[in-house]
Amino acid sequence: MKTAAIVIVGDEILSGKVEDENARFLVAELRELGVMLARITVVPDEVEVIAETVRDLSARFDYVFTSGGVGPTHDDLTIEGVARGLGRRVVRDPALEVLLRAHFGKDVSEAGLRMADVPEGSERAGGEDLRWPVCVAANVYVLPGVPEIFRRKFAAVRERFRESPFVLRSVYLRADESSIAAGLAEVAAEFPSVRIGSYPRTDEHGPIVRITIESKDSAAVQRATDRLVERAPAGTVASTE
Amino acid sequence: MKTAAIVIVGDEILSGKVEDENARFLVAELRELGVMLARITVVPDEVEVIAETVRDLSARFDYVFTSGGVGPTHDDLTIEGVARGLGRRVVRDPALEVLLRAHFGKDVSEAGLRMADVPEGSERAGGEDLRWPVCVAANVYVLPGVPEIFRRKFAAVRERFRESPFVLRSVYLRADESSIAAGLAEVAAEFPSVRIGSYPRTDEHGPIVRITIESKDSAAVQRATDRLVERAPAGTVASTE
Repeated sequence: MKTAAIVIVGDEILSGKVEDENARFLVAELRELGVMLARITVVPDEVEVIAETVRDLSARFDYVFTSGGVGPTHDDLTIEGVARGLGRRVVRDPALEVLLRAHFGKDVSEAGLRMADVPEGSERAGGEDLRWPVCVAANVYVLPGVPEIFRRKFAAVRERFRESPFVLRSVYLRADESSIAAGLAEVAAEFPSVRIGSYPRTDEHGPIVRITIESKDSAAVQRATDRLVERAPAGTVASTE
Repeated sequence: MKTAAIVIVGDEILSGKVEDENARFLVAELRELGVMLARITVVPDEVEVIAETVRDLSARFDYVFTSGGVGPTHDDLTIEGVARGLGRRVVRDPALEVLLRAHFGKDVSEAGLRMADVPEGSERAGGEDLRWPVCVAANVYVLPGVPEIFRRKFAAVRERFRESPFVLRSVYLRADESSIAAGLAEVAAEFPSVRIGSYPRTDEHGPIVRITIESKDSAAVQRATDRLVERAPAGTVASTE
């Protein structure tokens, strides 16, 4: 099972000027693709912070997706941060430079051409669907912050991440979480390959706990679900799904 | 200026079962309070990951707020993670134990009493407004994942974080970002205490860039705003706010 991390680069998110949409979008996409998302980190527009975050997450997980901080202005520091994080230089990609010159014409500024800069050895991914390809440096996918473009670019590469799907069951118990905790812990210990979560809330009928049972092994999910229902205190199982 | 980090503990967020509301809420609160939010990290329900994240962020920033992973079940690992991150033992707080026994009566389970466990040396904060106080271990505020309770508990401690407010101005330029990048970079370099952001989008009239100018020094914000307007290419200033 592949693992992933998301790095959102953006003072605007940390300061509340803009609400994140890209992590939210990517959480759902990665789940649907069968990829285990292990971390989301929001960092400021600071090269060293981006670099150390990318260095750490790129070493731990199979894929890293960055959002934001790409563009021509002084606060666009993701390319430099990713390059430093991977121990690479920033170089100008000749193919991207050709695209940029064709787009901007002869008035192209040095700032505009910065958008052709990439970590050395990057791949251009996403094929013919995109005006600008996705920059992939090692296992780091550099995506823009503007949500519509983020989605379009991710869509162009998404199928390369697809693997076997997660299987999720839920059991709803009419109980206080404390009274079912010991039984839950035993079932969780018996099925180490299955992720068992417990989410209490209170509705108009009193406390209710959603138990989630999840894995890529559907037989194990079924066995764990059966065991949970069997172990639940009498009369507490409200529903399963 | 004080700095803060948010740690969201939750498989349910990473797997897309639940959308985060607490980071979103706290971003706005901290901004209003004048606290600089420097990091948001979403981690899975794993003790070692919680511990290393808390260790790192607690050392770097003035305040760390955790959300989720508190409760009686096997997947509630935040107290243990925070304790390990701070190099402390987990101990049972006698005052909390009294509250729990009063609440649950004599049927209280060992799992229920786990909710009285805290990192050694923790403070109970939030005063008389709360049924359960906020656990504060060193500079780490441990808050629950359920949004209504998260908000109620944060409200009980929020005024201890208040300091001088941020001042934010915005200048909207009708321009392509590339064409203003050089001027922006110069103004940003001239006012290092002011945070200048550039957020391009395209509306029905074409490209428009929002430049944000922000600091706690309102005079510096005003001077940087004036300089930006002065430096903007002729005819590009659409509005300021």
